[in-house]
Amino acid sequence: MGKRNLITCFSPALFEPSEYLNSIVVIIDVLRASSSICMAIANGASEIIPVAEVSEAKAYKAKGYLVAAERDGYVLDFADFGNSPFNFTKERVNGKTIVYSTTNGTGIIKQASLAYKTVIGSFINIGALTEWLINEEKDVLLFCAGWKNRFNIEDTVCAGAIAERLLESNKFSTICDSTIASVDLWSLAKTDLPAYINKAAQRSRLRDKKLDDCIEFCLTFNITDKIPCIKNGVLVDNLL
Amino acid sequence: MGKRNLITCFSPALFEPSEYLNSIVVIIDVLRASSSICMAIANGASEIIPVAEVSEAKAYKAKGYLVAAERDGYVLDFADFGNSPFNFTKERVNGKTIVYSTTNGTGIIKQASLAYKTVIGSFINIGALTEWLINEEKDVLLFCAGWKNRFNIEDTVCAGAIAERLLESNKFSTICDSTIASVDLWSLAKTDLPAYINKAAQRSRLRDKKLDDCIEFCLTFNITDKIPCIKNGVLVDNLL
Repeated sequence: MGKRNLITCFSPALFEPSEYLNSIVVIIDVLRASSSICMAIANGASEIIPVAEVSEAKAYKAKGYLVAAERDGYVLDFADFGNSPFNFTKERVNGKTIVYSTTNGTGIIKQASLAYKTVIGSFINIGALTEWLINEEKDVLLFCAGWKNRFNIEDTVCAGAIAERLLESNKFSTICDSTIASVDLWSLAKTDLPAYINKAAQRSRLRDKKLDDCIEFCLTFNITDKIPCIKNGVLVDNLL
Repeated sequence: MGKRNLITCFSPALFEPSEYLNSIVVIIDVLRASSSICMAIANGASEIIPVAEVSEAKAYKAKGYLVAAERDGYVLDFADFGNSPFNFTKERVNGKTIVYSTTNGTGIIKQASLAYKTVIGSFINIGALTEWLINEEKDVLLFCAGWKNRFNIEDTVCAGAIAERLLESNKFSTICDSTIASVDLWSLAKTDLPAYINKAAQRSRLRDKKLDDCIEFCLTFNITDKIPCIKNGVLVDNLL
């Protein structure tokens, strides 16, 4: 078998689902959805139901579900908690089904669900994720969530870190300018990742809303070896 | 007046015309439309009429116009020449109206025409362009043409080179991740620009079609001080 193809997409507005029906899609939304979903699965959540609309999340809450929901960084008043990975503690989520609605992430999860397999990537599960991707015999698309359809730095740099590992395995090649650029940006970021991410617009947005307490955590490598995966429209542990 | 806003857009699919009605938009399509349009104006073309459809270009040809038209890098059989900057010589274009249709560039020119002013940027006119942008009292959008709606390296690196000069003037600031990333990629590229662009997918596409003879030229700084500008739907010298 020849080398597998590695592609990177910088925005949901640039994503064409039909091109990746036979690929593994890795959704990257570093600040904060990817990191939160990884922690929920790591702490024993049995499944996470992504919902796009606030009204849907509210309806689930009325039925007694645990609901994590925010818009523009703020927890919605009816929700149990918001989108910080610190919210998804073992005490709260172990064995539970969580309904999850965020500004960016939920729509993207639905958009990417047509792929052969769709998983969640972040710095906090990068080791287990890249090892798994290297061993699967599939092309890979790194799908950066961005912010309101725009390019963002933190997801791009994480894609670069994942791409670097995949390319170093010699199992992948790329002719994708986005992948090349993300690896190069990662090469600039990796000596001091928090300082580099400090330049990102989302970092400022979270700081302004005093939601930046979890950034250092979201930029830490290998906190968990769990890989959340979409099965039948819900997020579960990839090993299940 | 406070600092002016500097934004970068990586793809026509991410461009929202209504946000830039009061900005100067700089269209960047380094390989090769931007460079060709700059050379046409530099060599005395009186105006360039951008057309999106092959049928339109053909109709103009039937009326006796000089027509530059290509698709996917190949000159269309009815056209006078294609999209290499070397085609737009003084002998051919001086005093003439040119009808111009390319794979990417033409649609983007039309898309950007709603802005306060829309100009063409490239390495070959970067000095005059950035000096002019610094002196105008307007926000600036650097609009990378990309390739088939995808991010590309050569336009991004050129945007980074322009952005670096604008930011160094202290007249501009940015909170745009795309601008920050393009400046960082330019910082990696600038010590050996041809070597860096060698990594770009479009470089390989042009090489495969033996259309890469003009790449070194397209990466040369300050060949002309002309700034092509859109007026009433056609491209003319900005000073006219």
